Amino acid sequence: MGTVSIVFFDIDDTLYSTSAFSRQARRGAVEAMVEAGLGAPVEVCMRELDEVITEFGSNYERHFDRLLQRLPDEALGDRNPALFSAAAVIAYHDTKFRHLAPFPDVPGALGRLSQVGLRLGIITEGPAVKQAEKLLRLGLTQYLDPTAIFISDQVGISKPNPKLYRRACQLAHVEPSQAMYVGDNAPNDVDPANAVGMKTVLCRRGGRHDHKSSETPPTHIIHNFEELEALLGSDYGVGAKRERT
Amino acid sequence: MGTVSIVFFDIDDTLYSTSAFSRQARRGAVEAMVEAGLGAPVEVCMRELDEVITEFGSNYERHFDRLLQRLPDEALGDRNPALFSAAAVIAYHDTKFRHLAPFPDVPGALGRLSQVGLRLGIITEGPAVKQAEKLLRLGLTQYLDPTAIFISDQVGISKPNPKLYRRACQLAHVEPSQAMYVGDNAPNDVDPANAVGMKTVLCRRGGRHDHKSSETPPTHIIHNFEELEALLGSDYGVGAKRERT
Repeated sequence: MGTVSIVFFDIDDTLYSTSAFSRQARRGAVEAMVEAGLGAPVEVCMRELDEVITEFGSNYERHFDRLLQRLPDEALGDRNPALFSAAAVIAYHDTKFRHLAPFPDVPGALGRLSQVGLRLGIITEGPAVKQAEKLLRLGLTQYLDPTAIFISDQVGISKPNPKLYRRACQLAHVEPSQAMYVGDNAPNDVDPANAVGMKTVLCRRGGRHDHKSSETPPTHIIHNFEELEALLGSDYGVGAKRERT
Repeated sequence: MGTVSIVFFDIDDTLYSTSAFSRQARRGAVEAMVEAGLGAPVEVCMRELDEVITEFGSNYERHFDRLLQRLPDEALGDRNPALFSAAAVIAYHDTKFRHLAPFPDVPGALGRLSQVGLRLGIITEGPAVKQAEKLLRLGLTQYLDPTAIFISDQVGISKPNPKLYRRACQLAHVEPSQAMYVGDNAPNDVDPANAVGMKTVLCRRGGRHDHKSSETPPTHIIHNFEELEALLGSDYGVGAKRERT
């Protein structure tokens, strides 16, 4: 039986369904633009927006401006395009405010694991404030060790560079062999964490990265966080008492 | 009696109290950071944030990050600063969502003026989507001519350059002599609009620019939009029937 003193988590599609949320938020934004008078069908805009995101990246700041540029001139009529972009931004924030929620099994599992003395941390990629905002809106910061939250943007190293994982362990004062990483993206999460000697858990929930495979096998494969609690108990002696309701 | 076919408005501190709103939003953001564990008094943070805004400008994107950098290290403890910035951003958006409202006399006046055939437009300075978002959240776009909304960021000319006002009149297909501009900032709003031959209205509501004076006198001085409706009726024959309730 190995030992684990800290479990680091990926955020996107590991703690909440980024894929489902993004789809919902983007559709809400496009519907708001059409509501504001944009003369193009929602489905046409959604396809164009998907292309914009593929071309410019998901963290690009001006998706909606680019979408509007790509539509025929007639779609905007004589209206100021900023009014459509602003309607989209307002709707996007509204979806974030009302619908950002963790996978239902996540808060309970993190709560129980944190109560039995396991340190819980984050290793994630993206803009610092955007990733931190997700943790706050998901209501999960209460379970996390505040000294063990690492965002690539702040560390200066990006996935899948194994250095990001090694540096996180150093900064959290833990040997990689005592640390576990839980993520959904095999090549980005499993291979580099394996490379530095961490235990790795691939969480498959049917998300956008589930078809990918890693070059090195994960230590464990799970489908939800109940399985995570179970394997931490059986293989690592973590005494997370499960409260069944 | 002159004639006026279009009235352009400034947004900030003319259609709503930017000063009061910003103060409320910034205080909410600072209180959220302290709530999230920031070890510094709210008043100290507010003073520091005011300095940041003076130094970096009000449209700078990273006020809260700069505030955190300026506080003593002990204030952040061992927490990731992005968690504080994100708490501030969430609170700021929340204030925007709940409290952004026009001066109480504005919607009625714009509604009545638009119904008697006067064109109502905007000439404003700032980032395009941010200014458009204000118009949408204030609920005022329904009264505006969609072809007459001009934001410095999109026009490529900034206040107080008179070219911004001339270009807005050209693009709205109106002679400056037939156009009126209503703003609160004498040197930025009155002098350049006077320079291109527009009618000018200085609206003094006790806001942050009320102590400033223009080099050339405004055509009119008002203190609220009831006075605007009155002068449009008396001096320009605009038949805005006032509904008294």
